Amino acid sequence: MFEFIQSKDNPKIKLVRGLLEQASLRKKNAQTVLEGAHLIESLIHHYSNKNTDCKIQFLLCTESALDHPENQNALDTNTAPVYIVEPSLYQKISQLGESTPLMAVINFPKLQDAWQIDCDTLILDRVQDPGNVGTLLRSAAAVGIQQVITTIGTASLWSPRVLRAAMGAHFSLALFEAVQIENLIDQFQIPVYATSSHRPQSIYQLDLKTPCVWILGNEGQGVHENLLDKATAVTIPQPGGQESLNVAIAGSVCLFEMMRQRL
Amino acid sequence: MFEFIQSKDNPKIKLVRGLLEQASLRKKNAQTVLEGAHLIESLIHHYSNKNTDCKIQFLLCTESALDHPENQNALDTNTAPVYIVEPSLYQKISQLGESTPLMAVINFPKLQDAWQIDCDTLILDRVQDPGNVGTLLRSAAAVGIQQVITTIGTASLWSPRVLRAAMGAHFSLALFEAVQIENLIDQFQIPVYATSSHRPQSIYQLDLKTPCVWILGNEGQGVHENLLDKATAVTIPQPGGQESLNVAIAGSVCLFEMMRQRL
Repeated sequence: MFEFIQSKDNPKIKLVRGLLEQASLRKKNAQTVLEGAHLIESLIHHYSNKNTDCKIQFLLCTESALDHPENQNALDTNTAPVYIVEPSLYQKISQLGESTPLMAVINFPKLQDAWQIDCDTLILDRVQDPGNVGTLLRSAAAVGIQQVITTIGTASLWSPRVLRAAMGAHFSLALFEAVQIENLIDQFQIPVYATSSHRPQSIYQLDLKTPCVWILGNEGQGVHENLLDKATAVTIPQPGGQESLNVAIAGSVCLFEMMRQRL
Repeated sequence: MFEFIQSKDNPKIKLVRGLLEQASLRKKNAQTVLEGAHLIESLIHHYSNKNTDCKIQFLLCTESALDHPENQNALDTNTAPVYIVEPSLYQKISQLGESTPLMAVINFPKLQDAWQIDCDTLILDRVQDPGNVGTLLRSAAAVGIQQVITTIGTASLWSPRVLRAAMGAHFSLALFEAVQIENLIDQFQIPVYATSSHRPQSIYQLDLKTPCVWILGNEGQGVHENLLDKATAVTIPQPGGQESLNVAIAGSVCLFEMMRQRL
């Protein structure tokens, strides 16, 4: 009933390794790997909501993990082929160490420039750290943002580290990657805010009850001046006198303030 | 004028390596290592504010980095001995890779149970990830919190990774580590809030204008029930339907909401 895989030269194993390690292959194939039952369940959950264009191609699992309770939901609701991998081989390709073995190869949608110009949007401008990018996707999904756009230089959205930090947020967002946004930002018909240190306007002075765009910038350099020029620069007050905030924190504070005003 | 160090067996090099790698040695000596001019400057800045009990014991630098502009502030305002390390040896002990070489061995204060019972306080209950712990210290300092208490099981506050993520926040906070807080939480004379998913009370319903205590819990398990029982459990609304937030995000959203109410 299941096909067994024992060789590291099996084409499926080679594909998984390549997708885990090579951004270029992920981009070329528009495929990535989800590791762990939680991420795979998140995707399947959004299938049933018809809210994602991601598709599972196949699952890899060890024989003993087939019956593990943690994997049951993901395996029971999955309709793609499942391949059983010899445990020591699975350990060699896994990036998650001791968690229950289960991974999926998925196709992800390559969205092109067809974003909406009047809905809540998060723009990440050269945010480099995958943990920051994933965390920002998670916060965006939590407050109900619909779309996220990244510029060239932002960590690749479908990398394993971003996927892990985002905890399934990818599947409820429309994601536009590596966009040259400077020339397109004027399309937005709603207010555009960019966070920046030492600006007079506080985010708490903004009326955020209607849709808006948030731009967050590179960890060291902030938002590029070409973008900053086309946005309203706003600051999060810091009475304690720290000079700046982690970008994932700054972005999340902005997004949750927006959400608070709409409660 | 400067002493040169070329041998990996030099006692100062051995000390730095030990402090970078061994939590037990950091604890025994009450010493740690600050890497990079930014952290060292943060500490020196707080010296001049007389707001820290940390003391620099000595600095390590390469000869060429002595004249590097990035290091000038830290070197000019420092009064501790500076040792020049042979570049290939410095590279072997550094954890920061390509940044400008400069590190400091400092003594940090071991604070014992003498926290204030009526001022804004952040309690971290078994928060394991050093990045989360450091980021929470940075947010706490940014909003002007005075003290942070951690339980046993929380990442060691003076580890290099926590120090890097906190970006100097350590030096404006009173830090109490590895405290058995369950039996002491009743001492606080102010409201105590613990974040927890799926609770009816939203943080946005709270009056946060007067001092309070925030408890944040372990990444997987949340706040321990022994602590939760002695606190008011509160939730951050998530209309987007994500099941939980990263603990550093959740904590920062709470702290900035408190700050917002006091602006």
